[in-house]
Amino acid sequence: MAVDDIESAVETYSRYFAARVERRGRLEDQGVDAVYLHVGDGRVELVAPLTADTPVGRFLAKRGPGMHHVAFEVGDVAAAIERLGRAGVNLIDAKPRRGFADHPVAFVHPESLHGVLVEVVGG
Amino acid sequence: MAVDDIESAVETYSRYFAARVERRGRLEDQGVDAVYLHVGDGRVELVAPLTADTPVGRFLAKRGPGMHHVAFEVGDVAAAIERLGRAGVNLIDAKPRRGFADHPVAFVHPESLHGVLVEVVGG
Repeated sequence: MAVDDIESAVETYSRYFAARVERRGRLEDQGVDAVYLHVGDGRVELVAPLTADTPVGRFLAKRGPGMHHVAFEVGDVAAAIERLGRAGVNLIDAKPRRGFADHPVAFVHPESLHGVLVEVVGG
Repeated sequence: MAVDDIESAVETYSRYFAARVERRGRLEDQGVDAVYLHVGDGRVELVAPLTADTPVGRFLAKRGPGMHHVAFEVGDVAAAIERLGRAGVNLIDAKPRRGFADHPVAFVHPESLHGVLVEVVGG
């Protein structure tokens, strides 16, 4: 979820959905502060831009806060994106890079996935 | 996920993410065709509008296909939304109604949840 004020969003999810903070951090290369929340059996990731001139900053300026992407966890990110690339999917990341909490991640372009930005993430 | 062409989206998720169709149906009161997909351990719901003059039809016209809402499963929807309402959350549904596969559901307004439309759904 892309948000303007990450502490306010942590408070909202904690109060209304009994969320528990799993991890906080900063992703310099993506230009965001991030928080992993446990919500029930699932995980919600909050991201807030460090500056307006970042992908999440531009997303917020254009669309306002809201759902930004969905992550699917796989055993082997490199193998998964190689397979997707061979199948003709438009990949944002042709190779895995380090995401939040040092998970290997790769993003898939929404144009290949009915408008949904997908992050493939290693466990 | 709100989509224009639900069969095309089913094919996309099946081919790229090994999705399996769990259930198909029509929600007349919401004006959508819907498909539940199993994707790994999770569930993705695809919705496609029956006509342009429906909430999902208007969403697509305004924003294009993409993520529409997120669902949190609870044991007792009525109790959950009563508690949220008492806490000051803006509820779209003050009482549960029947959703897809006859699950009781209630929607929470995005203005209370940092721009995210949340569906509270019974198991």
